[in-house]
Amino acid sequence: MDDATLDRLAELAVRFGSNVQPGQIVAVGAEIGKERVARAIAGAAYAAGAKFVDVSYFDLRVKRARIERSDPSMLDFVPSWYGERLLALGDQRCARVGLSGPADPDALEGLDPERVGKDLLPGLRETGKVVNDATTNWTIVPAITQAWAEFVHPDLEPDAAYARLSEQLTHILRLDEEDPVAVWSERFDLLVDVAARLNERRFDTLHFEGPGTDLKVGLLPTTTFLSARFETVDGIVHMPNLPSEEVFGAPDPQRTDGVVRATKPLVLAGTIIRGLEVEFRAGQVVRVDAETGAEVLRGYIAKDAGSGRLGEVALVDGQGRIGPLDTVFFDTLLDENAASHIALGNAYSFTAGEEDQAKLNQSAIHVDFMIGSPEVSVTGLDAAGERTPVLVRGDWQI
Amino acid sequence: MDDATLDRLAELAVRFGSNVQPGQIVAVGAEIGKERVARAIAGAAYAAGAKFVDVSYFDLRVKRARIERSDPSMLDFVPSWYGERLLALGDQRCARVGLSGPADPDALEGLDPERVGKDLLPGLRETGKVVNDATTNWTIVPAITQAWAEFVHPDLEPDAAYARLSEQLTHILRLDEEDPVAVWSERFDLLVDVAARLNERRFDTLHFEGPGTDLKVGLLPTTTFLSARFETVDGIVHMPNLPSEEVFGAPDPQRTDGVVRATKPLVLAGTIIRGLEVEFRAGQVVRVDAETGAEVLRGYIAKDAGSGRLGEVALVDGQGRIGPLDTVFFDTLLDENAASHIALGNAYSFTAGEEDQAKLNQSAIHVDFMIGSPEVSVTGLDAAGERTPVLVRGDWQI
Repeated sequence: MDDATLDRLAELAVRFGSNVQPGQIVAVGAEIGKERVARAIAGAAYAAGAKFVDVSYFDLRVKRARIERSDPSMLDFVPSWYGERLLALGDQRCARVGLSGPADPDALEGLDPERVGKDLLPGLRETGKVVNDATTNWTIVPAITQAWAEFVHPDLEPDAAYARLSEQLTHILRLDEEDPVAVWSERFDLLVDVAARLNERRFDTLHFEGPGTDLKVGLLPTTTFLSARFETVDGIVHMPNLPSEEVFGAPDPQRTDGVVRATKPLVLAGTIIRGLEVEFRAGQVVRVDAETGAEVLRGYIAKDAGSGRLGEVALVDGQGRIGPLDTVFFDTLLDENAASHIALGNAYSFTAGEEDQAKLNQSAIHVDFMIGSPEVSVTGLDAAGERTPVLVRGDWQI
Repeated sequence: MDDATLDRLAELAVRFGSNVQPGQIVAVGAEIGKERVARAIAGAAYAAGAKFVDVSYFDLRVKRARIERSDPSMLDFVPSWYGERLLALGDQRCARVGLSGPADPDALEGLDPERVGKDLLPGLRETGKVVNDATTNWTIVPAITQAWAEFVHPDLEPDAAYARLSEQLTHILRLDEEDPVAVWSERFDLLVDVAARLNERRFDTLHFEGPGTDLKVGLLPTTTFLSARFETVDGIVHMPNLPSEEVFGAPDPQRTDGVVRATKPLVLAGTIIRGLEVEFRAGQVVRVDAETGAEVLRGYIAKDAGSGRLGEVALVDGQGRIGPLDTVFFDTLLDENAASHIALGNAYSFTAGEEDQAKLNQSAIHVDFMIGSPEVSVTGLDAAGERTPVLVRGDWQI
């Protein structure tokens, strides 16, 4: 990515995505390998009046050393100051910028998947609270690295792979538009509108049907669909994900039944899970199969009482820019926005009304996986079982 | 540095320097560019039974963006969680490993020195407390980078420069000995002995005399000389600096007078201060001159009431391995151990007795600079002015 485009990305992340306000502390979460992007964002944040930019680098190779050599019973330990820092970011009304994309896709290659599944870092339990409290204005944007580019485009020469991924990210992020913010604003207006219509319908259940998939996801009486345009308690509007093409809400964690086949690979704790198939009964995962990496997801699911139940269901139409590229990016931020998806683990409190807060799923994990494609139709069912088409071949029907 | 030598360095830092105990959290402080050394230390620490290794990477290029673009009045701001983490490391009796050496010597090139002097990060005010409390077992070891090697040996080709610095560090750290720990233990035994003899003499003043230097440093009635072999409150013996060749104690912050010329360049906040000359009157710095970078040190000295007074005086003999190499390493850890030195700013409480604790210098800074050489003699004066030679041409006289 050339410097000019990188600066446009940093501007988009700072001025529109996280919408940094003068005087705010800005926390940037990056992995080793993403220094160039992190530095561009730091520069843009200071130019926007940030009081301080706290770039926190996570080193997957140190994580590898831990998984290889640590006492296995210690692999879920997290020092107290990790969570305290995150809570302080909320208390002090900071901005946050996360950088997605596998910086170093081979970092955890060949490790015991059961051990890998125990160490959730850099993920933190406190993230759910800070997001639910809406005290920070935050965004996640993809950060290109050479290793990621070669991983996504293994058939190209290294330089060509980098150029291709750079071009794709530029396109997906609308950085090839004269005014990316205007284009994104229009897209978010549409998604906000779809969410409003879904909320009017008040479906009891969403039924996903397609190759290998026959899944009914029960909704709560007050399930609230949203697009990824958020507002903090202080009224700062921000885009938690750039790109974002989704409309999402909270399932009833007790009422998911059937079988679902993932339509994209899932990258979890550095492991790539391919050919994933999951079966639910009364909301609970009862079977996980995959061609590769099933043990890592099983490890996640064994974390706590809520980690085998759904915390999110999201619908993605065919109008976004990711799906048509027909590329697996090995990055949830991008891949989930190519297709409808569900998430195991913690629910966001703002995706249901007051009466249903106690019913929302609670967990230390939140793992999205993609289940949508043009071949997967989504139908809404009301309490009487009456069926209304919602998404057919990627087009909204409501 | 080849992998085998790097592993020996990591073992020395973990098993001898910080003396990591099974079950401890180990905090590693590194700059971007030192990933390879940080990872080796993480691996050695997990192998030694560490509960968790928390590698914290500081990015000098983000610091550069801050100094270039931030509101100047914000340049001394530090987020609350930086200090809280350090205090937690003490409260939780953790081990700490710091990595010295300028990872990226050009990072702050050409910036306004006054601005540079305001931002002390990655230094933290809380370091003094944690060190004085003796709650953490810690060490600082040099971490080689390609950029550092080229900076130290600009006349060599890049590969040769790296090989030369690697060889020098290997020699200085006694990694070329069959049993580095045994050799280091013997050296520390000698320095402990010298410190004991200095403490018996109970000098009133140390007098430094040499080219451009005529400086009298007053001592406190209970000034306690020590070598860098420390013990935590829990009885863990550790070596705060590897290498270390010094014996050091606390000056009386009110009684330094005269002029001193630095015998080595000083690297401060990424700036290199050359040709430094400092004048003291009644303990206070009254003049700072230098060929380059004087403003940065002046910025430090303006920090607080104690930043223009001495907190440490240290004597180095000619028997160490750094002086004979006649190389400027641009790293205080190495350069200060080539020569006697003094430090502006905070004193260590353990370098004076109970009665003099209130007299010790207090400051947010601690800046060592080198004033010794074979041409600089050190003489001890008792209260009556009687003179006793201490160091002449690098040899102990007591």
